[in-house]
Amino acid sequence: MEKPLKVVVIGGDAAGMSAASQVKRRIKSAEVIVLEKGVDVSYGACGMPYNIGFKGDIDALVVLTAEDFKKKRGIDVRLLNEAIGLDEKNKKVLVKNHSSNREYEISFDKLFIGSGARSALPPIEGVENEGVFTLKVLDDARKIKDFIDKKGPKKAVLIGAGFINLELAENMKRLGMDVVILEKLDDLLLNMEEEVRDAVKEELKNNGVEIYFGVDIDSIEEGLVVKTNKGDFEADFVNVSVGVKPNTEFLEGTSIQLNKGAIVVDRYFKTTANDIYAGGDCALIYHRLLNRNVYMPLGTNANKAGRIGGANIAGAEKQFAGIVGTIIFKVFEKGVAKTGLSLEEAIKEGYDAFKTVITAPTTAHGYVHQGKVSVILIAEIATGKLLGSQIFGDFEGVWRVDVMAAALYSNLTIKDIQGLDLAYSPPFAPVWDPIIVAANQAIKQV
Amino acid sequence: MEKPLKVVVIGGDAAGMSAASQVKRRIKSAEVIVLEKGVDVSYGACGMPYNIGFKGDIDALVVLTAEDFKKKRGIDVRLLNEAIGLDEKNKKVLVKNHSSNREYEISFDKLFIGSGARSALPPIEGVENEGVFTLKVLDDARKIKDFIDKKGPKKAVLIGAGFINLELAENMKRLGMDVVILEKLDDLLLNMEEEVRDAVKEELKNNGVEIYFGVDIDSIEEGLVVKTNKGDFEADFVNVSVGVKPNTEFLEGTSIQLNKGAIVVDRYFKTTANDIYAGGDCALIYHRLLNRNVYMPLGTNANKAGRIGGANIAGAEKQFAGIVGTIIFKVFEKGVAKTGLSLEEAIKEGYDAFKTVITAPTTAHGYVHQGKVSVILIAEIATGKLLGSQIFGDFEGVWRVDVMAAALYSNLTIKDIQGLDLAYSPPFAPVWDPIIVAANQAIKQV
Repeated sequence: MEKPLKVVVIGGDAAGMSAASQVKRRIKSAEVIVLEKGVDVSYGACGMPYNIGFKGDIDALVVLTAEDFKKKRGIDVRLLNEAIGLDEKNKKVLVKNHSSNREYEISFDKLFIGSGARSALPPIEGVENEGVFTLKVLDDARKIKDFIDKKGPKKAVLIGAGFINLELAENMKRLGMDVVILEKLDDLLLNMEEEVRDAVKEELKNNGVEIYFGVDIDSIEEGLVVKTNKGDFEADFVNVSVGVKPNTEFLEGTSIQLNKGAIVVDRYFKTTANDIYAGGDCALIYHRLLNRNVYMPLGTNANKAGRIGGANIAGAEKQFAGIVGTIIFKVFEKGVAKTGLSLEEAIKEGYDAFKTVITAPTTAHGYVHQGKVSVILIAEIATGKLLGSQIFGDFEGVWRVDVMAAALYSNLTIKDIQGLDLAYSPPFAPVWDPIIVAANQAIKQV
Repeated sequence: MEKPLKVVVIGGDAAGMSAASQVKRRIKSAEVIVLEKGVDVSYGACGMPYNIGFKGDIDALVVLTAEDFKKKRGIDVRLLNEAIGLDEKNKKVLVKNHSSNREYEISFDKLFIGSGARSALPPIEGVENEGVFTLKVLDDARKIKDFIDKKGPKKAVLIGAGFINLELAENMKRLGMDVVILEKLDDLLLNMEEEVRDAVKEELKNNGVEIYFGVDIDSIEEGLVVKTNKGDFEADFVNVSVGVKPNTEFLEGTSIQLNKGAIVVDRYFKTTANDIYAGGDCALIYHRLLNRNVYMPLGTNANKAGRIGGANIAGAEKQFAGIVGTIIFKVFEKGVAKTGLSLEEAIKEGYDAFKTVITAPTTAHGYVHQGKVSVILIAEIATGKLLGSQIFGDFEGVWRVDVMAAALYSNLTIKDIQGLDLAYSPPFAPVWDPIIVAANQAIKQV
């Protein structure tokens, strides 16, 4: 009898569990072992800020438990088992079991690395103090919720003005806290257009969130006081969110190529080592517009990487279509979304590009409810080829970014976008959808 | 000095006013005369059911008045002036002025026909009785609002189960009326899938609207009583909405080709007569997927026809990209949308096609608010080419039809749709957007 395929998966969140599930679905006989260094698998990490703000049950974010995976899918999930080394030539992973504190080796026929990333912590004195948090894994959210329940903090200082802290700002306000955001750079969301950045700052202001730029943090003193070049900020709660770092240290010394710590993969999510695949926050991902890999650690990318990488481990030959860089997030009652390139990014890529900005209603003229949304189109002057779009404004209207993501996928031009047959009915959209209004404006510059 | 271009436009609603505005914008010197048989121009007809239900100011639906067009755009709008004949060889329109009750001729260099359509009235005894209405033009809405204000009807009978009466059903309920819908055919929305029809019927039922199928109306007796083969229905208010009829009788005997009463146009909105263009509810429109003209009288189509037809009158050579048949409407708290072909339509067109139906949440797992939406994909078996999509469910989620409309425009396959980089964040979408869930399911049948 042939030996069953033995697949080891490092990391039990979006990418890893998707990969494990795909393998098991396609090859029933496969032995699939997942090594997860933490205590949770398969949860909706992106929902954590809202779970905190709405005081939800933290377990509501868990999609499937380790036990579910074992019982329902026959996947051997080993919690508190961390991959600490890899011998890719002899196909063995060195594992540390944090329960027993013992190390062991596990062999594999094929390996999927979905080891994720962790919050980057700046070298600031006092970041380990009580009341200072990061928010990356589910256990971080548990600790924050527990702290809020027990200590009832009133003043939140959020270090870093990325979208996690913007989401946290809304949710800390929801919990009744004063919120201050401290950002090292001179502005926020630098990969977005000025109009979006201004709108976000205005929405923060309108909701009583203070934001300071150009802030260098000296230390976080117990108590807590955040000492900076812009003065001292008192806090009962601090969250540090200044980027993430791929969990790939255990790959040092192997032949697996890394780029700034992230694993290099091809469009099949194969690494540079035989029979070893990777995806999710620990790896690069193929960007369709740029025709090269980028680092874009998002849940949706991780799920796709796991699904396709897992299928390929099981013998499929699925080529990943690539991302176009779509992101969306909520800032209080506004939505902010981007797909493709910003104008600056487009110019850096060598495009002779322009942008158009329009603001238009989200429902028909005279309809009882009317929101507003702004649409930015970035396109190549010579050809009118769409390069990117940013959409922001009333929460209800920013879904339009998905239409632009489909347009980017299809290499549409501004003229094509003018020709889209978008739905019209007063409660849903105005007769000239904001997307078409933007295209009608942009066409003048082509 | 050269004589200025003289352009006559028949009809002052969406198509006509868009055409007139385009001409004037492109050729400042042009003399543009709009002949409108009614008393309103440029209004949001699709908003009428909601304006009635929310007791809005009827003038809120008017985008620009005849006076506005004269003053702001230099367009000579003649209200109560009806085109009653055309001499296309000598380029003259015969006009009846309903104010003075006199007829006159007006010459043109170029003509745009946007004469619209009217509600088809079945030959039922009593359709002219007090309390029996149709709803097509703004003045219809005025009369209905006036009737409701004065008579306070309690029982509405809506004849025909098309989307106008479905929208009216919601709004009559909003005004506190009992609502009964009577439909001649055995079901509603026959150009949609069974799953959509069932969902609409359930939503009507959940909101206390009665609906009867296979109803032949014998007469509407004063009082009112609607006498049918399914029994008598008492009513204080009746709306008849059983389709529309193009206003093209004045073209009989001309060389302008009609098809079932609708004006045949090419992709430039040019009719079969020299220098005469047409668009909107009186004309056919090019369908991109079918590669032929269809009759689809919708506001969004009329606006595009007017805009492009007007530009071409002014010397542009804009080819219309074509519609893909996108429609959307609200039924109480649900949304219903379609783009492209239904399965039955696809099969009629000769495709070996299949459909997939999935239901998925509209927000992330564990998010505080969660709606549901169903996505139907219709595709060709051999190639996976997308042929159509229908989306229905919670109001907030059906915008996804616009992504599918963009996919149809771009001839995407199911595999392409799997590859779309759609936005993910808990308040906006689940990590696997319903569109991707549907594509992941559909790919199994390709």
